[in-house]
Amino acid sequence: MAFRPLHDRVLVRRVEAEEKTAGGIIIPDTAKEKPQEGEVVAVGTGARSDNGTVTPLEVKTGDRILFGKWSGTEVKVDGEDLIIMKESDILGIVG
Amino acid sequence: MAFRPLHDRVLVRRVEAEEKTAGGIIIPDTAKEKPQEGEVVAVGTGARSDNGTVTPLEVKTGDRILFGKWSGTEVKVDGEDLIIMKESDILGIVG
Amino acid sequence: MAFRPLHDRVLVRRVEAEEKTAGGIIIPDTAKEKPQEGEVVAVGTGARSDNGTVTPLEVKTGDRILFGKWSGTEVKVDGEDLIIMKESDILGIVG
Amino acid sequence: MAFRPLHDRVLVRRVEAEEKTAGGIIIPDTAKEKPQEGEVVAVGTGARSDNGTVTPLEVKTGDRILFGKWSGTEVKVDGEDLIIMKESDILGIVG
Amino acid sequence: MAFRPLHDRVLVRRVEAEEKTAGGIIIPDTAKEKPQEGEVVAVGTGARSDNGTVTPLEVKTGDRILFGKWSGTEVKVDGEDLIIMKESDILGIVG
Amino acid sequence: MAFRPLHDRVLVRRVEAEEKTAGGIIIPDTAKEKPQEGEVVAVGTGARSDNGTVTPLEVKTGDRILFGKWSGTEVKVDGEDLIIMKESDILGIVG
Amino acid sequence: MAFRPLHDRVLVRRVEAEEKTAGGIIIPDTAKEKPQEGEVVAVGTGARSDNGTVTPLEVKTGDRILFGKWSGTEVKVDGEDLIIMKESDILGIVG
Repeated sequence: MAFRPLHDRVLVRRVEAEEKTAGGIIIPDTAKEKPQEGEVVAVGTGARSDNGTVTPLEVKTGDRILFGKWSGTEVKVDGEDLIIMKESDILGIVG
Repeated sequence: MAFRPLHDRVLVRRVEAEEKTAGGIIIPDTAKEKPQEGEVVAVGTGARSDNGTVTPLEVKTGDRILFGKWSGTEVKVDGEDLIIMKESDILGIVG
Repeated sequence: MAFRPLHDRVLVRRVEAEEKTAGGIIIPDTAKEKPQEGEVVAVGTGARSDNGTVTPLEVKTGDRILFGKWSGTEVKVDGEDLIIMKESDILGIVG
Repeated sequence: MAFRPLHDRVLVRRVEAEEKTAGGIIIPDTAKEKPQEGEVVAVGTGARSDNGTVTPLEVKTGDRILFGKWSGTEVKVDGEDLIIMKESDILGIVG
Repeated sequence: MAFRPLHDRVLVRRVEAEEKTAGGIIIPDTAKEKPQEGEVVAVGTGARSDNGTVTPLEVKTGDRILFGKWSGTEVKVDGEDLIIMKESDILGIVG
Repeated sequence: MAFRPLHDRVLVRRVEAEEKTAGGIIIPDTAKEKPQEGEVVAVGTGARSDNGTVTPLEVKTGDRILFGKWSGTEVKVDGEDLIIMKESDILGIVG
Repeated sequence: MAFRPLHDRVLVRRVEAEEKTAGGIIIPDTAKEKPQEGEVVAVGTGARSDNGTVTPLEVKTGDRILFGKWSGTEVKVDGEDLIIMKESDILGIVG
């Protein structure tokens, strides 16, 4: 994997609406403010507290997640369009 | 259950006004800024402090709750319209 | 009581101006920004600190209180109009 | 006393300009943004920290104080016009 | 001294521009946003932390100081025009 | 190296889009809000907590990184155009 | 030196662009938002935490530094135009 997110950031691949059968989450019209579904591609080492304590993230590589529509920043990694976001942008884990 | 909320988030099913007999809470006109009633469908693992301490949530799956009218984000889970919100959006537990 | 406030919230019944003899507090014109008087109907379990410490509230059920005019959210409980507010909205205890 | 302020709040009686001889503080024109002088009528139990520690207030009942012109909320207690403010609104103790 | 500042506040006498020889600081045109020079008349007991720890102030009575032009609140003490400000408004100690 | 960043700051050399083969990250049009790629030239001693604890940074000199388009401040060091930014502006480490 | 900065403040002498050979930093047009170079003239005792811990500053008297264009407040000390700023305004140490 050519990209390691920093601290409490997570690299996510967007899962398009029609692909969703396993998790059973259907979000027909991506136009509205509906949350988006995605898959975790890589996670940071964890959130750092003020005195240096590192707390590992709750999500793991491979998790199917729901995140807020406008979360994160788009980036191309190995030619693929992905999103870098903070774990706090993630609403929950699917399935 | 196909969806696990993250950290201090809660998945809630909206309970429509006319269904409310048991808890005895009547909120006739949902138009005004009245709080909404709902049922907790799933809860996150708990709030995380700066140094990683996890504090379990006070609400549990199955609790009837009151929450602020504009709280949370709408999402479809297994074809059903639900809401994901933070525990801090919940005003109290009914009954 | 059909409603338990969450954490540091308090359920309050508004006490109308003319009823006030015992506590001796007279707030003639509720139009101005005068604080309101009320009675505590139910209290939450307490404020939760970042690392999970729960600190019980200072006000108790039955206390007569003064609170800021615009505090809290209106709700109907068992057909009665009440207000849910945070303890930090309460100015003090009467009598 | 018919009113106990909550936490770090203080009940204050306004002392009119011309009455001030003892403390020697003269604030001739209350129109400008000059601080106001007053007398502490009652104090709360103290400021509460995030983990529940209660720190008693520095001002005591009977202290003559100076406070910012727009501090606090007006209230009538036993028919008298008083002000409820936070200790942090108080600039200092006179005499 | 007829006035004791509260907590981390400081009572300051403004030192007019032309008086400044000892410290050697010349601030010719008080019109611009130049810092002001003054003398500390009285200091509070110290800054209070969230859990009640009191930290004495760094400035002492008699110190010559520089402070931001718009800092503090004007007040008359024993007929003299002085300023009450927070220690954090003070830039440094002269001489 | 003629420049040591302070605390949690990082000195970064911008890596132009066409140079990127090793890490495999292609960001064709720098016009859009795409994150930028760069190389760490120097790092500060670490983030300082409120009570003085110093936590070393996660990025090291020589790391290839991705950072937000508008992060940091431009500066010339030894005649070369570089950027000074906070570690919190860095999204992740490439390769 | 006739001036001691308070807490985490630093007294700085601006170093004009053309003087810079030793450190090798050239900032040709001070008009743009380029950081400024300067020399530390005096430092405060250190940053004070909420519970009174004093953490010495990282910069020392005599250090050549880079700071943000609009940082600090101008003041005349012993007839010389200097700047008082917070250590957090300083980007790094030159040479």
